[in-house]
Amino acid sequence: MKITGNTFVLKNTPSIVSFASVVGKKESEGPLGSCFDECEQDAYFGQDTWEKAESEMLKRTVSAALNKGGFTPEDIDYMFSGDLLNQCISSTYALRGFDIPILGLFGACSTMSEGLLLASLLTDSGAGGHICAVTSSHFCTAERQFRLPLSYGGQRTPTAQWTCTASGAVVVAEKSVPPYVKGVTIGKICDLGVTDANNMGAAMAPAAAYVIKTYLEDTGKTPADFDRIITGDLGTVGTKLLYELLSRDGIDISKNHSDCGVMMFDLKEQDVHAGGSGCGCSASVLCGYFLPKVKTGELKNILFCATGALMSTTASQQGESIPSVSHAVHISNSSSD
Amino acid sequence: MKITGNTFVLKNTPSIVSFASVVGKKESEGPLGSCFDECEQDAYFGQDTWEKAESEMLKRTVSAALNKGGFTPEDIDYMFSGDLLNQCISSTYALRGFDIPILGLFGACSTMSEGLLLASLLTDSGAGGHICAVTSSHFCTAERQFRLPLSYGGQRTPTAQWTCTASGAVVVAEKSVPPYVKGVTIGKICDLGVTDANNMGAAMAPAAAYVIKTYLEDTGKTPADFDRIITGDLGTVGTKLLYELLSRDGIDISKNHSDCGVMMFDLKEQDVHAGGSGCGCSASVLCGYFLPKVKTGELKNILFCATGALMSTTASQQGESIPSVSHAVHISNSSSD
Repeated sequence: MKITGNTFVLKNTPSIVSFASVVGKKESEGPLGSCFDECEQDAYFGQDTWEKAESEMLKRTVSAALNKGGFTPEDIDYMFSGDLLNQCISSTYALRGFDIPILGLFGACSTMSEGLLLASLLTDSGAGGHICAVTSSHFCTAERQFRLPLSYGGQRTPTAQWTCTASGAVVVAEKSVPPYVKGVTIGKICDLGVTDANNMGAAMAPAAAYVIKTYLEDTGKTPADFDRIITGDLGTVGTKLLYELLSRDGIDISKNHSDCGVMMFDLKEQDVHAGGSGCGCSASVLCGYFLPKVKTGELKNILFCATGALMSTTASQQGESIPSVSHAVHISNSSSD
Repeated sequence: MKITGNTFVLKNTPSIVSFASVVGKKESEGPLGSCFDECEQDAYFGQDTWEKAESEMLKRTVSAALNKGGFTPEDIDYMFSGDLLNQCISSTYALRGFDIPILGLFGACSTMSEGLLLASLLTDSGAGGHICAVTSSHFCTAERQFRLPLSYGGQRTPTAQWTCTASGAVVVAEKSVPPYVKGVTIGKICDLGVTDANNMGAAMAPAAAYVIKTYLEDTGKTPADFDRIITGDLGTVGTKLLYELLSRDGIDISKNHSDCGVMMFDLKEQDVHAGGSGCGCSASVLCGYFLPKVKTGELKNILFCATGALMSTTASQQGESIPSVSHAVHISNSSSD
């Protein structure tokens, strides 16, 4: 592998050999509804609490990713998993049944990028046979934990985003099938002082701008080298700020940028305000919408940058601003340069 | 690197080139008080909330690890960090000032093992120049978040442990100085059905037993090959259960086992019941007590297995049992076999 700063160009181009996505009802009714492997109409996923529902969804997503690749749990060497819930319980309770070695992550909504990045780095360097990375989010668990119990019927601000009930999982291995991971950049924590927990897009835009700029600079690529530069869940507000921040460095990604939070819902019809959010938003859109297109070659190169806001309710109550992070993963249909 | 199951034998034997620990007042009054780099008498670490205090402690620990190794933040390629607080805020708020790329972890009190394991795996495979791994815990933040506000003056059960106000950080690099990391095992989630959140030692013992047994089996070593086999924070109750679980497999580690939670405090005088706990407990005891002894050769080989309980208050309130995980890291004074 070739290292420039915090960017790694992966010489063995690890393959994403399997991937799967599971979403909830509202997500299934959005413009991408037909892309996902499973759409569950019951917000409880057959469980008796929302937290157990989220765990069940994550479990089904891992099962689907294994099944689609023809793998059993014994084929997976180890896993990366994390989520938004306190102490990442949707991951741990979902995965205790799998008997697969596990490394827990916390990257908030950047988790899919982080897990895919680590799985790819380790596969490239020979420390992985088959590595699975997964994450999830659930509207009802996130609302209760971060905002208000749903039954309060609280008003949402215009900049607010809608946490997706969604999950995505990938299996990375050293193999010669597309999609390939060709490079990654590890992000830095950015904080421009945004304190409004109902405006996460604004808080996360600087982290996305940093990691996109860094990947382009470190690899000598331009936005035109990518069919799509994909952010996680900046929503409409954060997307505008991202363009503004990058334009200061003379970078214009507006023509080939997509934000998973904007894509997930019909913003006019589905009443989600600034768009979707949550770890599962970018994870499911990556696994449901983008990876199939890179696999077939309909998309040649994408730069996937899931974006995470790293605050907690305690930090917000203490008046803290919201730090954010984003990691970049370059995924390609071709393993050659 | 040689891989057997989930155990990796590291052929390039990454070095722990620097390490540091910072603890609070009670920890400084314990039997290991003289080992740590900094003992802060003010529980607030000069801040106005306990969460900010924990962040400040973690920040000082990273600074101390960098200073002791003669590093500036620019010398560090990237970091692993995580902690017990919801959304790992003590890590993110501490590290946003450092301008170092960061990968967030969640492994509860196993975080030091997890960070050191990943830093070592990535260094061994050439994906790291200098990688820092850090974690922390604070008695006051943990009590408020997981149990009762301190001012309630709640009674503690005999099996309860005392979350240490402590932090430890390591810098791993490809270099020829001891201590070396010779091998690692990635742990699995174990859950034998313990539901008592005041008996974390019992919940974590199975994960420690699993990872110790696996490392020994996969490498063909015996307990006698290690001067010390070290668990994170099983305390007196969990330690007894660990010996019992391993004895079922014919493994006796009782003669060369140490538990950081038992070591940290004078269990007769300091009223901590079953011992210390928290991410910072094993991290600070590793960096303050064990690594200096491996560096000088006073200890030749240690197997460090920090142990984490992966529950949250929400999961406990929903009647869930407590899953746990532990990862093993073999640290040696010598790089040869």
